[in-house]
Amino acid sequence: MPLRSDWSGDRCPIARSLDVVGDPWVLLIMRSALQGTARFEDFRRTLGVADNVLSRRLGGMVDAGLLVRRPYRGEQRTHLEYLLTEAGADLLPVLNALTLWGEKHTQRPQPDAIMTIVHTACGAVTHSADRCTSCGKALVADDVSWRKAWHPDAPDVALVGAADVS
Amino acid sequence: MPLRSDWSGDRCPIARSLDVVGDPWVLLIMRSALQGTARFEDFRRTLGVADNVLSRRLGGMVDAGLLVRRPYRGEQRTHLEYLLTEAGADLLPVLNALTLWGEKHTQRPQPDAIMTIVHTACGAVTHSADRCTSCGKALVADDVSWRKAWHPDAPDVALVGAADVS
Repeated sequence: MPLRSDWSGDRCPIARSLDVVGDPWVLLIMRSALQGTARFEDFRRTLGVADNVLSRRLGGMVDAGLLVRRPYRGEQRTHLEYLLTEAGADLLPVLNALTLWGEKHTQRPQPDAIMTIVHTACGAVTHSADRCTSCGKALVADDVSWRKAWHPDAPDVALVGAADVS
Repeated sequence: MPLRSDWSGDRCPIARSLDVVGDPWVLLIMRSALQGTARFEDFRRTLGVADNVLSRRLGGMVDAGLLVRRPYRGEQRTHLEYLLTEAGADLLPVLNALTLWGEKHTQRPQPDAIMTIVHTACGAVTHSADRCTSCGKALVADDVSWRKAWHPDAPDVALVGAADVS
């Protein structure tokens, strides 16, 4: 996905990854997709992003192999939804690392704006981006929830993993 | 640091983090800083980045608390170098997560372009962004090297942690 520079052929995997995800909208779209958002209108509404920005990012993310398009039947006509690939779902550690860093080093707008990462397979809050610090298992999206203390009635959002597109 | 949007007051820590590091140059500068680069000219040369882009990013990263400026005496006059703060050094898991994702999901330009994360405290290669998968300890920059197989004579680059600025 072309950004300001092309790092897709760099020897460093950090640079090659940033060639794909080195854009805040791409990672915010992944954040929504991991929480189950799949439809253009739902991404647009939850992210407050302009149509053309969203459209361009989703197309680039499909080309980069983070998302796959799948048709679904709407009321009037067939629409497309965007589902996570394995490569997309494997970005969970990047988003979890940003969660942990943001909780430690940025200022919450309200005291209850606390987000924690829950390994639902064992029930513990984990302090690692990719391993449960309680049971030691590798974190995969299907076994993780993001707990948002600012939604006290239903704080835990269960994440979704890669779609079965076989 | 203003990007396309302002997420600094968002309740979600991922959005607040992206407000600071949601830019590929910022994370590439952090990658260099963790490997010991501290001077403007060295960042410019190793990253191949334009002066104005680098200057703006370094200033924003100081404002955001990722780097601190410290004067050093050059041949002709006093220059500034940019050293990691604790918040800056704590971005290691984000960069490690990008390393692991890039190694798994992007294409290497050459077969030997393999980068691994070494926990020098115990000597093992770790497959986690923030915990040693061998000894279980939390990874901190001072105890980590990035091993680059494409530099066979000296593959291991020892990372540097936060500067002592007291």
